[in-house]
Amino acid sequence: MYDYKAAFQTAVDQVKGEGRYRVFADLKRVRGQFPKAVRRREDGSEQDVVIWCSNDYLGMGQHPVVLDAMKAELDTAGAGAGGTRNISGTTRSAVDLEAELASWHQKDAALLFTSGYVANEATLTTLQRILPGLIIFSDSLNHASMIAGIRNGGCERHVFLHNDLTHLEQLLAAAPADAPKLIAFESVYSMDGDIADLAGTIALAKKYNALTYLDEVHAVGLYGATGAGVAERDGVLDGIDIVECTLGKAIGVMGGYIAADAVIVDAVRSWASGFIFTTSLPPALTAGALASVRHLKTHPELRVAHQERAQALKDRFAAAGIPVMPSESHIVPVFVGDPVHTKMISDMLLEDFGVYVQPINYPTVPKGTERLRFTPSPNHTDDMMDALVEAMDRLWSHCNVARMPSAA
Amino acid sequence: MYDYKAAFQTAVDQVKGEGRYRVFADLKRVRGQFPKAVRRREDGSEQDVVIWCSNDYLGMGQHPVVLDAMKAELDTAGAGAGGTRNISGTTRSAVDLEAELASWHQKDAALLFTSGYVANEATLTTLQRILPGLIIFSDSLNHASMIAGIRNGGCERHVFLHNDLTHLEQLLAAAPADAPKLIAFESVYSMDGDIADLAGTIALAKKYNALTYLDEVHAVGLYGATGAGVAERDGVLDGIDIVECTLGKAIGVMGGYIAADAVIVDAVRSWASGFIFTTSLPPALTAGALASVRHLKTHPELRVAHQERAQALKDRFAAAGIPVMPSESHIVPVFVGDPVHTKMISDMLLEDFGVYVQPINYPTVPKGTERLRFTPSPNHTDDMMDALVEAMDRLWSHCNVARMPSAA
Ligand SMILES: Cc1ncc(COP(=O)(O)O)c(C=O)c1O
Ligand SMILES: Cc1ncc(COP(=O)(O)O)c(C=O)c1O
Repeated sequence: MYDYKAAFQTAVDQVKGEGRYRVFADLKRVRGQFPKAVRRREDGSEQDVVIWCSNDYLGMGQHPVVLDAMKAELDTAGAGAGGTRNISGTTRSAVDLEAELASWHQKDAALLFTSGYVANEATLTTLQRILPGLIIFSDSLNHASMIAGIRNGGCERHVFLHNDLTHLEQLLAAAPADAPKLIAFESVYSMDGDIADLAGTIALAKKYNALTYLDEVHAVGLYGATGAGVAERDGVLDGIDIVECTLGKAIGVMGGYIAADAVIVDAVRSWASGFIFTTSLPPALTAGALASVRHLKTHPELRVAHQERAQALKDRFAAAGIPVMPSESHIVPVFVGDPVHTKMISDMLLEDFGVYVQPINYPTVPKGTERLRFTPSPNHTDDMMDALVEAMDRLWSHCNVARMPSAA
Repeated sequence: MYDYKAAFQTAVDQVKGEGRYRVFADLKRVRGQFPKAVRRREDGSEQDVVIWCSNDYLGMGQHPVVLDAMKAELDTAGAGAGGTRNISGTTRSAVDLEAELASWHQKDAALLFTSGYVANEATLTTLQRILPGLIIFSDSLNHASMIAGIRNGGCERHVFLHNDLTHLEQLLAAAPADAPKLIAFESVYSMDGDIADLAGTIALAKKYNALTYLDEVHAVGLYGATGAGVAERDGVLDGIDIVECTLGKAIGVMGGYIAADAVIVDAVRSWASGFIFTTSLPPALTAGALASVRHLKTHPELRVAHQERAQALKDRFAAAGIPVMPSESHIVPVFVGDPVHTKMISDMLLEDFGVYVQPINYPTVPKGTERLRFTPSPNHTDDMMDALVEAMDRLWSHCNVARMPSAA
């Protein structure tokens, strides 16, 4: 007789055996004091910590303009949306937010999803139903949500080497000229901090008559004059057919969306199961996101401060011989290269120094490239950086970790 | 050269041609006055309406206990969670909510997802990876999110006739005795309002050594002494291996979860892409859901009032000869049987009577069974019911719709 309990236990043991069993840090963020938070240990005791790995990149999740909009919407409209978009769940702030997002990305229309994950999964699956025979070309480091959407649709797919346009062109050239094609990629890759060549990718798309699908999840709010992302920074908004973003990182709330031509959005809206059959975002979230986007558009100084903080941390790490990985963006990854070491350093940073940075292990990054990943925000002060670099320096010596790894 | 625009247009036209193109009603709920809301027309003008199709079944989305908890959490913790559960996104109210949900369903553990859709999709896909060779037996009317999860995992699956235990047993008996098996079903089917035979299904699961996976999305908060669902009402909590619910309907907020044995939850937690790689629920949502669940557990009178209102509406429709479909639950479906008629009646109810009830067409229900679906809450008064029944009566005469359809 099949032993279910043993099978579940095996699945858990396998993860433990690979050193990637995750224990979540239980945090209470302290509004107004971000990046400070209070951590609750398993024994119930508490510890003050500084969060160094949040994707609330600009601290908008603490911003009064966002919180006030959310509270005002709770007061006028209540908590949940109460239904799917079609069945009583289309609230006014969602409609207004979609219009704002569309204009931000200079597209006809935008469509909200419950998360960036669902936006990717649902859209990429659905495009395969709408465009029969679609061939998808996918960057090898694309996010799990894109991979899920591509795979679940079941179409022909080709993975090109990360940010390698030569390889991408080979694959495009080898595909039938008249088949529908889509290139799926990200602008900022969040674990390495490198940035795709948007103009180069768009040129290939035009040459081979392919659609471009760009995930700007780690760029929206952060790049470009109004914060519309790397496509805005690079002046190529027009060349991206479908842009996908989250409301949960720089925007500081939760949710996801795509923006594109009206007919593309209308087709996805009409066909995507992951859009149609789910309760829509609560009005307070869409109202908060709307206030956040409006603020981000008109506050470029936040983006300047953000880049300055990232550069400052990279410089400090480099000066101390800490192996900061090359990154063109606001992401500051530090190479360790081993899951056990990474976890040990992160545990000691937390317990001994109140520095909270999560170890990044497989499956989030390839085995052998385990790392710590820091995301300084405009709210991270020089003093916090000094304390961090000193702690890292002591642990690097204590744990005898390489200061200049060849792999990094 | 492939014409993308034409392909997208074709996808939209197909939906229009089938009479199921959806125009979302743009609503602003008025807190404290639920089910009243203000609708914004496409021309910008406004109209007062009564919502008759919300899944905020008990009006908890307007309840002060929920709103106060959300506002307090915004004040202390801020807007978004700022990360995935593993990377700085595990907030204290999420941990507390998981403990509360587990104890509600009398399980070891619970796991939050961003929605009920994602809970179903991610869990059912992941179970197929954890239990190689799994065979899933799925009720023919299961929700789209379960179907997506079952299909995306790619395992062997058998669909049994809706609520037909004889058919289910035939399929179970025909499968290899030692293969892992799972029966996936719902308690309350939300478009018809019928309720599955939980005890009978559990007996079959025991006989054939299968796991039971029960979606209580339309039952949680509404059935059982403490509102833990039909499994509680029927005294069979123990016989359900994995229960899946939403925080977005009776609980009035947004999100989803599963509850099960600790090892099952830990395995899903460690393996499910849709759980791992997404920003977690904002603290205000988990705090609001926690307050809502605690309130629901100790207020059975809400459930009594809810059932009374549903019965009152069914009785009034029946007395007026309106073809209310047989329903054992709080769902009140009225048969129309044709997408164009259904849409026309719902449009007239809205424009002429301020009654907002969405037409339910394919693919939500099978073609030929198009209907209106009413969900009276404790907040729907006798006066509102009188106005509704009178409006329906006039439209039924005006549109010459059958009063006693054989199909209903
Ligand atoms: C590149 C990328 N795309 C999509 C997502 C999913 O977005 P969300 O967190 O809103 O689900 C993430 C991270 O969570 C991501 O890193
Ligand atoms: C039976 C059923 N399961 C799951 C879901 C999805 O739940 P959620 O709205 O939280 O995504 C729904 C409806 O939305 C449903 O009707």
